[in-house]
Amino acid sequence: MENYNSVNEQIIEQIKSSVTGRVFVGEEINVDFFHDEMPIYGEGTPDVLVDAVNAEEISKVVKICNENKIPVIARGAGTGLVGAGVAIDKGVMINMQPMNKILGYDEENMVVKVQPGVLLNDLAEDCLLKGYMYPPDPGEKFATLGGNVSTNAGGMRAVKYGTTRDYVRGMEVVLPTGEITRFGATVSKTSTGYSLKDLMIGAEGTLGIITELTLKIIPSPKETISLIVPYENLDDCISTVPKLFKAYLNPQAIEFMEKEIVEMSEKYIGKETFPKTVEGVEAAAFLLITFDGDNEESLNDIIEQAAEVLLEAGAIDVLVADTPNKIKEAWAARSSFLEAIEAQTKLLDECDVVVPINKIAQYISYVNEIGTDYPFEVKSFGHAGDGNLHIYACSNDMEKDEFIKVVDDFMNKIYGKAYEMGGQISGEHGIGHGKKKFLREFEGEVNTSLMRGIKQVFDPNNILNPHKVVS
Amino acid sequence: MENYNSVNEQIIEQIKSSVTGRVFVGEEINVDFFHDEMPIYGEGTPDVLVDAVNAEEISKVVKICNENKIPVIARGAGTGLVGAGVAIDKGVMINMQPMNKILGYDEENMVVKVQPGVLLNDLAEDCLLKGYMYPPDPGEKFATLGGNVSTNAGGMRAVKYGTTRDYVRGMEVVLPTGEITRFGATVSKTSTGYSLKDLMIGAEGTLGIITELTLKIIPSPKETISLIVPYENLDDCISTVPKLFKAYLNPQAIEFMEKEIVEMSEKYIGKETFPKTVEGVEAAAFLLITFDGDNEESLNDIIEQAAEVLLEAGAIDVLVADTPNKIKEAWAARSSFLEAIEAQTKLLDECDVVVPINKIAQYISYVNEIGTDYPFEVKSFGHAGDGNLHIYACSNDMEKDEFIKVVDDFMNKIYGKAYEMGGQISGEHGIGHGKKKFLREFEGEVNTSLMRGIKQVFDPNNILNPHKVVS
Repeated sequence: MENYNSVNEQIIEQIKSSVTGRVFVGEEINVDFFHDEMPIYGEGTPDVLVDAVNAEEISKVVKICNENKIPVIARGAGTGLVGAGVAIDKGVMINMQPMNKILGYDEENMVVKVQPGVLLNDLAEDCLLKGYMYPPDPGEKFATLGGNVSTNAGGMRAVKYGTTRDYVRGMEVVLPTGEITRFGATVSKTSTGYSLKDLMIGAEGTLGIITELTLKIIPSPKETISLIVPYENLDDCISTVPKLFKAYLNPQAIEFMEKEIVEMSEKYIGKETFPKTVEGVEAAAFLLITFDGDNEESLNDIIEQAAEVLLEAGAIDVLVADTPNKIKEAWAARSSFLEAIEAQTKLLDECDVVVPINKIAQYISYVNEIGTDYPFEVKSFGHAGDGNLHIYACSNDMEKDEFIKVVDDFMNKIYGKAYEMGGQISGEHGIGHGKKKFLREFEGEVNTSLMRGIKQVFDPNNILNPHKVVS
Repeated sequence: MENYNSVNEQIIEQIKSSVTGRVFVGEEINVDFFHDEMPIYGEGTPDVLVDAVNAEEISKVVKICNENKIPVIARGAGTGLVGAGVAIDKGVMINMQPMNKILGYDEENMVVKVQPGVLLNDLAEDCLLKGYMYPPDPGEKFATLGGNVSTNAGGMRAVKYGTTRDYVRGMEVVLPTGEITRFGATVSKTSTGYSLKDLMIGAEGTLGIITELTLKIIPSPKETISLIVPYENLDDCISTVPKLFKAYLNPQAIEFMEKEIVEMSEKYIGKETFPKTVEGVEAAAFLLITFDGDNEESLNDIIEQAAEVLLEAGAIDVLVADTPNKIKEAWAARSSFLEAIEAQTKLLDECDVVVPINKIAQYISYVNEIGTDYPFEVKSFGHAGDGNLHIYACSNDMEKDEFIKVVDDFMNKIYGKAYEMGGQISGEHGIGHGKKKFLREFEGEVNTSLMRGIKQVFDPNNILNPHKVVS
């Protein structure tokens, strides 16, 4: 543990007199700021919460913290899943949500400038109104874009459009020493020194505080169609995926899910969309696939080819959702998986391991098999198109301490298997506070010591979001 | 200048006994290894040249250099344009070209594993034979892939397919301290700590030596068509580009070029393809555009729409090249620009500045206007689709010292203007030795000191490719 100073009256006064944003102290701070969506990775109570107004005020607060060796952390909507946005060691929390303006579109360069507190959902909808698409599409639509960039959020459409990293052109950043700087630019192509921008993406708020983003947008595809595809067993279901790619079909999204989790989610949202039995055959797993294109005719051709591949690969049916409403319904169950599990589970841990796509079936078999050795339930779903799997350990009857201990052992085994298959710890959720020891173990001492060195370069006093990733 | 030790007999013996690759000493080293394609940025004579065989041998050589504080530099095909691959401070050069094997395709994960000495051209051709495309397409086809990754090479197709960065999934690296490690993985999506892989991309061989690459490939588009589009003046020519994007046409490549440079190049290759007069109207500038797609019919639709936009924007004609041979011919002149200029010019300097695409016309006007104040000729061409411009200062009658002095002043002005417009120093050539002071000046002390800190973390003794980028 670092030796930080405490926030005292004098520092509170110094902060209050430096900013125009609201400042909350001690019990004035809403308890929602004490944890993220995965409280099992630790809670923390900041001493002070400051509403962000602009880079200059953030810089002033960070300078006060740096000079006084007080932890400071920027926080978005708190939707993280690894404890990255939690003030583990108290200190000052900067609430980025008030910086929520879409600053403007540059349609000739196909970029949009936003403040970091804009919610993904708000940008996505605003883009659509203008005929554009902001492609990154994580399950959680009410995260801030600053948070999305900080975890390199992936989501459903990564298989065709890539992850958040691919859509960040430039950013304004407040460094842990308080300087305001810019990384990247509006341009789409650059070889101008080390890519500090790419270092910030996925750094989970440990290297700097993002105060403005220039994001790439694309023309919105004119047509979209989704398919719900039931299978008799999970193995057939997952094994279909490489076959779709081999046929040069190019889905926008392709998700796999087991029947149990679909049922949990449908129960949670109160609507059934997925067929559980088709002509007497019971479905055990599903693919949910979306294709997009600019031309209805060629999209219909693709659907026809896809249906052929799917049925040949063992699908028991192919249901087409071809209106915006039907597509929305098809995806509603998928979008609510996490909330549904949370609502129906007392103790919960998860991982978002990523493996090569041709290893998914084998990997899930392994996970389900060793899962039976443990006194909790294992549920999984994930992005079949990019190998990013969400595996949940759920218990309603274990003691918390015991649960944490055995889940730790389970995670260690399944991460080990992922690395054996050429995978990595996290596809999109990050490392935060919860996965630190796995990062050290599986990425190794050489890589993590480089990361620690980089952290030291950016943040010599280790005041910015300490105890996360490698600090 | 750092205080390095000299390579003595004992060290040469130590190297020779550590490797199976050929070792050349002093005058045994071919003079081609003393400079890159832009000798104006400095030449350097390594004391020893070692043929690379594998990561283990490279690690041994690097360890010897690190322990003895001797500069060491990995060198690809020497096609760089900023002096990044030149042994400015002598020492040991590792020739990566012998590590030139394509190690294998993983068609289910759509990646190919290669050694870093594989030439871009060899991978591109091999991919095509298998129905794939490796999209990065820099003008220089005979660079190594390790070099391409080290400068984040962009090229013609960046407008549609992105740059080299977007195709690097993972790499094996020998660090300056000699450890062998891996950054990234076969997976397409990752949030597993700071992206060390993205730091290596574009680091110009200063942070580690790449010994293996896992590169993303895509299905090859089935149809390709190129258009040669003459204009009466450069301004109309360049102003067309944002109009094409606004019409949601999605070219694979879009290059602009002035008549003089086309003529130089056609003279050099001995073949005329570009029409200099159309029905009595003289062409002053050209666009060369390629569209691709999987469907002949929809591609024809695109060409029709594009022709309409082009003619409305002032094109005096639209010539279609629709066979592989005609397309090859159309691009032959463009591909030979650099060689043509080199062959016909005694003193040459260049930059590859990048500006937002809606600023290209205004920027080129500025460059041409201030160019007339200088005692050299200014020629420009570039990637109109991504704002990456190649501007050449050419003289056949100036003295070298005087040329360097006035070009420096010219570059300073045009970089300044680029930053004013939201651009950056380099779109794809990098910083190397030649552009170091401009990086410091225009990216600023805050950003370059972060870069220096990162260099120090990777390379505490500053032995790997010193005097490049920020060291």
